Parts: sequence; structure tokens; C-alpha cells
Amino acid sequence: MTAATHTQMSRHAHYVPSMDLVPLVLEGRVSAIARMISRAEAAYPEAAQALAEIYRHAGRAHVVGITGVPGAGKSTLVSALIKALAGAGHKVGVVAIDPSSPFSGGAILGDRVRMSDAAATSGAFVRSMATRGHLGGLARATLEAVDILDAAGYSPVIIETVGVGQDEVEVVSAAHTVVVLSAPGLGDDIQAIKAGILEIADIHAVSKADKPEAAATIAALNGMMALGAPRTDTRWSLPVLAVSSVSGNRLGELTEAISAHWMHLKESGELAARRRAIARTRILSTARHLFHRKFNEGGGDLDSHVEAVVGRAIGPSTAARLLLGWESEA
Amino acid sequence: MTAATHTQMSRHAHYVPSMDLVPLVLEGRVSAIARMISRAEAAYPEAAQALAEIYRHAGRAHVVGITGVPGAGKSTLVSALIKALAGAGHKVGVVAIDPSSPFSGGAILGDRVRMSDAAATSGAFVRSMATRGHLGGLARATLEAVDILDAAGYSPVIIETVGVGQDEVEVVSAAHTVVVLSAPGLGDDIQAIKAGILEIADIHAVSKADKPEAAATIAALNGMMALGAPRTDTRWSLPVLAVSSVSGNRLGELTEAISAHWMHLKESGELAARRRAIARTRILSTARHLFHRKFNEGGGDLDSHVEAVVGRAIGPSTAARLLLGWESEA
Repeated sequence: MTAATHTQMSRHAHYVPSMDLVPLVLEGRVSAIARMISRAEAAYPEAAQALAEIYRHAGRAHVVGITGVPGAGKSTLVSALIKALAGAGHKVGVVAIDPSSPFSGGAILGDRVRMSDAAATSGAFVRSMATRGHLGGLARATLEAVDILDAAGYSPVIIETVGVGQDEVEVVSAAHTVVVLSAPGLGDDIQAIKAGILEIADIHAVSKADKPEAAATIAALNGMMALGAPRTDTRWSLPVLAVSSVSGNRLGELTEAISAHWMHLKESGELAARRRAIARTRILSTARHLFHRKFNEGGGDLDSHVEAVVGRAIGPSTAARLLLGWESEA
Repeated sequence: MTAATHTQMSRHAHYVPSMDLVPLVLEGRVSAIARMISRAEAAYPEAAQALAEIYRHAGRAHVVGITGVPGAGKSTLVSALIKALAGAGHKVGVVAIDPSSPFSGGAILGDRVRMSDAAATSGAFVRSMATRGHLGGLARATLEAVDILDAAGYSPVIIETVGVGQDEVEVVSAAHTVVVLSAPGLGDDIQAIKAGILEIADIHAVSKADKPEAAATIAALNGMMALGAPRTDTRWSLPVLAVSSVSGNRLGELTEAISAHWMHLKESGELAARRRAIARTRILSTARHLFHRKFNEGGGDLDSHVEAVVGRAIGPSTAARLLLGWESEA
């Protein structure tokens, strides 16, 4: 699709039913992808069926999570990765929920798509998600955006997130390969340990490799791994790599490690276990989200149950089960 | 029931179905009450129907919450109140979820009933609840214990809780009359403000009235009320009372204020609004508890949904709705 067609479509925008967008998403049409992601983000009930259909067509992409504390240099790394991976012939998708990301600048203004220089010249699709106003549904919306890019033929799909906050850790845990980026300096390490992101790494990357302190950070990470609890996937030996996003130095080692981990997951059979863990996380996260939304809505059902409890017609436990829909009215 | 009969029953303990305990609870039989509370605390599924039945028979008691930061002197005050109220002819019930309470000592060892001197000589029923291991169900269990005492004819039923922690604030909010006890000293005030308990007070009590600092605390509380947000129940003018539990000094003012508030609730019609708010809190708290328990159980249902999502037969949102029981399998 040319830029001209895209502009024209936006000008004469009308509401296309989400189910009609599905075949366009599967064909890889950028405007359909962007619309579909916006609908996932806004949690339109109308889009639920289409998103379920898209999910059924997804499952081929290698989903790579890139996380790290603020200031670690994630966005610079992602830009460098887009160039390197696109250069190697990959159709790269990026979903950024890092508020400090240059890709995320647009998220504050609305749901518009922002292409970085790297993305614009490489055919990559970069999308930022608003990090507020989701009532706990950020993980759901982000992973639905990943599904959309996956179903549209993008791979790898990179999730860029700042590794602080439960939602963010949950999202990045839903990647097949998790890269945790650390910047040289002890303070950051402590922040990362606190956030619990070091232990979800499949690959450790240390940014600003040109700095002399980088070696100490690499040694510290290696030391921490030696001391740490045994990992679930014992057949993967976790690499600790120094990268310099600015000079592009040693970026090849990182892209190779990412590919190697994907191969490892497939060959070892670990991929099945990981897919199961990801599905589990997504189901529980969505259930939690639906549940909280029901509470926040309150209204009709709850009010009538309150009256029944006040009138001692039913007890609070029965009312709770009715509210949850786990029991039907007698 | 004599002490001898009680001992005999304990010695030949066998499992009496909870529904068979209900008429004994309604008659006020102490051993049946104690058993029923233990079952509520342990969340026996078998007891659910009986607890619902008991709830339907409850609703006459005046439920009084007594809260305050640790060290405010709650337990001493409760002991003094038991004596004073029992002396005035009331059949007093107490449910303590204050880990620092002398009544709660037994809770750590198990679910045995502990009678203080005050309780033993007055016909009061005092029960402590374990404050751990409830998976968020502490509020549910505590308020079911209140129902049991209520249905058994106790009134007032006092809930003694340390006013720190969401669960504890939730429990005491389910009382008709909330007494917030402050000890002279600024540090405690700040702790109480932080915990959000000052704003739920219907009556402010300042302990250690004999201390010279008490007057300053009373002035501070009065000042805070003048500055604070307008209360929902504007027809009740919130008293700030000095009490000395040790000397029993001015305890009469507190028991009078508690009675006056109960009269006020009934005469103003505010009781209906409060009952509605209490029912709402209990329903939501129970629903939240049931939901978390379902997650923690995991198992059967969740596992099969995970397989369906991994196999791309259904999306995570559908699986979440199935897990919640909000959608039935196709």
C-alpha cells in the first residue's frame, strides 16, 4: 500500500466492521493492522470476535521481549535491532509500552501510529500503546497487538517495555525470548532485581559496551546467575552479551543469540512448555481484567443483590456467586 | 450449658453436620457457636448452606467496630466495655482480629475459644480469629462470625481490629457504629490518617485520658474534623471522647455514645443506607475472595483452557470467560 492510498483511506474514514478487517490484516494491510490494534486497545466489544479469529491465525511469529529499567537504552537498542533484522530480510513488528520510548511519544496524544526513521525505511511496523487508562487491561491489549502483527506475517515481533510494574513484567513474560538490558552501574541492577526482571531473562544484554564499567556489570550478572536459583530451562545456557547500540558494535552477537534461542526452543521441545506458560498467563490476566471491569461497572446486578442481602433473602456469599455468574437465581 | 457438659461434648467430638448446628446456634448454645465459627474460619464448603441460613436469621444485633493503631489500647478498652455492657444487661459478643489482643493469643495456636476474665464472668462470648492463612478471606470469615453471634442473640457484637491493612479497614467498615481509638501522641495520629481509619469513625475515643497529652489529641481530632471532607451522615455530630480504660473513668460516656449512635441510625433512617453499604462491601469482598481462590486452585479447568489456547482453538479472552464461568463451551 502506498502512502497516498493510506492518506485517502484516513480521510474518508468510516467504521469498517472488525470482522471485515480480519482478511485485510491477514494480508498484511498496514491500515487494517493499525485500525485493528486501535480497537484492541480501546477494548471495543465489537472487535472481540475478530480478535479471537486473528488469534486463531497467529502463532508463527517469534515474539521477543526487550525489557530493562528506565535509562538502560532499550529504545536505542530496538531501533538498532529493527535495522539489523530488517537488513537480514525479516519483517519486524514492534509493540512498545515503554513510556520513555521515542516510539511511545504518540501514545500520549492518542492511538496514532508513529514510524521511526528505522521503521519507515525498513518496512517494519512500530506501534506504541498508551500506558494509562487500561484498568489493568494493558497486558491484554498489548498481547492482542502482538497477535495482530503475528497473524499479519510479522516476525520477529518485539515487545519493548520498561521492566517496572507488574503489568509490564507480565507482558514481557509472554514473549518466547526475553532480552533483559542492563546499563553499566550498580543502581540499575538493584532496581532490576527489585522488579524481578533479571530472573525472566533468556539473554542478558549490557548496553553502552564502550564504557569501561560495562565489564563490571557483565561480571556482576554472571555472578548473580551462578548464585541464583536453577532455571526451569536448564538446557539453555544464558548468554551475557555486551552491546553498543550507538556504534552498532557487537549487535550481531545479540541477533544471533535471539535466533539461537528460538532454534533452541523449537529443537528442545521447550517451546511447547513456554507456549503453555504464556497461554496460562494470558488467560489469568484477561480473567482478572474482566473481573475488575465488572466490579468497576457495578450497577444493575450488584444493586439488586445488595437489596436481597439487606432483606436477608440471601447471604453475601450467595450474592457474590450470583454476581460472578457462578450461581443462577433460584 | 454447664462446663461439664461442654467438656463431655468435646471429648466425644464427632462431626455434626453444619445444618444440624443451626438450630443450636439460634438457641445460643455456646459449643455450637464455637464450632460454627471454626467452620466459617476454615471455609468448609459443607458449612456454606448453614452459614447462609444463619445469615437469614441474623440482623438484630448492633455491630460495633473498635479500631485504632497498635498500642492505642483497644483490647483494654474492649475488656472494660464487656464489663460495662454486660453489667447493663447486654449479652455481648466479641470477634477480635487484632493480633496484639489478649483475646487473639489463642488464634496463633489454633481456633480455640479464649475467655478473658471479663468474658468468663459476664456471659460474653469472645472469639479471636487467626489473622493469617485466609487468602483474602479474613473479612468474610470475621463477618460470618459476627452473623453467628448475631443470630445467637448477642448484641452488641463488637469487632476489635487493628486499623491497619485493607482487610481490617474493610471489616470494621462493616460495623454499624465505628469507634476509632487514638492514644495521646502525634505519631499515632499520622499512622491512623495514613491507614484511612479516622474518616470511618462514628465516635472518636482518646485513650489514656488521665495523661496530660490527651487534651492535645482531642483538640487535634476536633481540628481535623473541622477541616475534613463533609461526612455522608451529616445529621450525626461526631463525638470526641476521652476514656480511661484502666480507671474506668468516663467509660459511661462512651457506652452512651455507642447507644446514642444506634438510636440515631434507627431514627434517622440512616441505618438502611448503612446496611446497604455493608451488604455491598461484603458481597464485593466475598466475590474477590472466591475469585482469588479459583485462581490459586488452578487445576482442571484452567489446564484444559490452556491447551485449547495453545492449540489456537480459542483465544485467551474466550478462555478467560470460560474460566470465570461467564461463557459456556460451544
